[in-house]
Amino acid sequence: VIAYDGTAFHGWQRQPRHRTVQGVLEVALGEVLGGGPARVMGAGRTDAGVHARGQVASFSAPTRLPAAAFPPLLERRLPPDVRVRDAFEAIPSFDARRSARARRYAYRLLHEDDVLLGRFAWAPRPRRPAEALERAARALEGTRDFSALRGAGATPGTPVCRVMRASVSVWEGGLRLDVIADHFLYHMVRNMVGSLLAAAAAPDPAEAMRAILASRDRSRAGVTAPAHGLTLEQVYYPAEVRA
Amino acid sequence: VIAYDGTAFHGWQRQPRHRTVQGVLEVALGEVLGGGPARVMGAGRTDAGVHARGQVASFSAPTRLPAAAFPPLLERRLPPDVRVRDAFEAIPSFDARRSARARRYAYRLLHEDDVLLGRFAWAPRPRRPAEALERAARALEGTRDFSALRGAGATPGTPVCRVMRASVSVWEGGLRLDVIADHFLYHMVRNMVGSLLAAAAAPDPAEAMRAILASRDRSRAGVTAPAHGLTLEQVYYPAEVRA
Repeated sequence: VIAYDGTAFHGWQRQPRHRTVQGVLEVALGEVLGGGPARVMGAGRTDAGVHARGQVASFSAPTRLPAAAFPPLLERRLPPDVRVRDAFEAIPSFDARRSARARRYAYRLLHEDDVLLGRFAWAPRPRRPAEALERAARALEGTRDFSALRGAGATPGTPVCRVMRASVSVWEGGLRLDVIADHFLYHMVRNMVGSLLAAAAAPDPAEAMRAILASRDRSRAGVTAPAHGLTLEQVYYPAEVRA
Repeated sequence: VIAYDGTAFHGWQRQPRHRTVQGVLEVALGEVLGGGPARVMGAGRTDAGVHARGQVASFSAPTRLPAAAFPPLLERRLPPDVRVRDAFEAIPSFDARRSARARRYAYRLLHEDDVLLGRFAWAPRPRRPAEALERAARALEGTRDFSALRGAGATPGTPVCRVMRASVSVWEGGLRLDVIADHFLYHMVRNMVGSLLAAAAAPDPAEAMRAILASRDRSRAGVTAPAHGLTLEQVYYPAEVRA
């Protein structure tokens, strides 16, 4: 279970000439295991600038080290913007990505720009009332076609996601959107945020959000909110993946 | 009115070979005013690693620019970890340091380490209950001799401060201590935090804190909490300093 400040990373996924979270993690893990280069599978391929508190990465390796030994051994070899929060032994078929049942992302909004919180939250203009945002967010819940919120350059696959929760709550300095879904389309949460801000300005925010979704048209939706406001908070697995 | 992320600064005060907030601000202001090097006076000389949301700096210069022109002109020339939130014209005798009537500092504590919030909050071990910390904090209020909480290497001056408020509240991810006082001794808030954590473990936290203060003995107080948890939130002035 991994946390990172995404500011100085070109996202999760390993790239030849860029600093990525997967890249630095695989170097550190290779050192701990003492063999050649290690390979890990991440539950969510977070974009450049996106943060994580509860990213999960899995690997398979012949080792006598217990799972609990890995966090301190890895942390010693990792830069300060990546932390290893926990480690568990899993069943052989476990794969952090394919075994995940749901993921929770948080997007943080600020009432005004802030030099400390602004590292992982966004201050859009104009401000929208929390109640209007909450009403629009609730319209995202359910099993729906999210084509209107799928970013360009998306990988193919079904646009139908099951959103178990989309709620707006008060957060230090502003508001926060929490979204739990079985899977997410490319830029989906960031497009949700732009669309919530647009829908919140309508007389009926829930109806405006439903109209955006029903259009299945990306051009009807709002702007893509900046990456730095987004954090992968948690990945959910069935209990039986623990070894 | 200035905000900064203190992480990459050697504190507020100008130093010949170190990056300081006063240093970068004076360079930017010199460029805006178009003359030689500019000089500003800061309300609080924050230490290395300490942050600010409401630092105040004053300067005097012959210029036709209105006060409102300075924030955008300065921000364009400042690094992203310093923001200029506001600017006002003041009466000729105004001095950000000497005209201040009170200052408010916040110290943020985390329940557990966090790669995002940990940039400006501290996760001490063991955790102490909020109620015990709050009871100990309230014992700091009033006009008292704070010699026991004065750091070594302090500048001379009266150890008697008037603490208008010392309270503990819930903050995203943990607790936060807010202290308002007419002036602060060297390391006073950071020593308060270490002492609150010690006092909170006693059967009567308020009594334990009063005993620390009454001793006037630095060795009776707790550890000095790390700089990065501290933020100068606000500086208070009488209304009549506005020009």
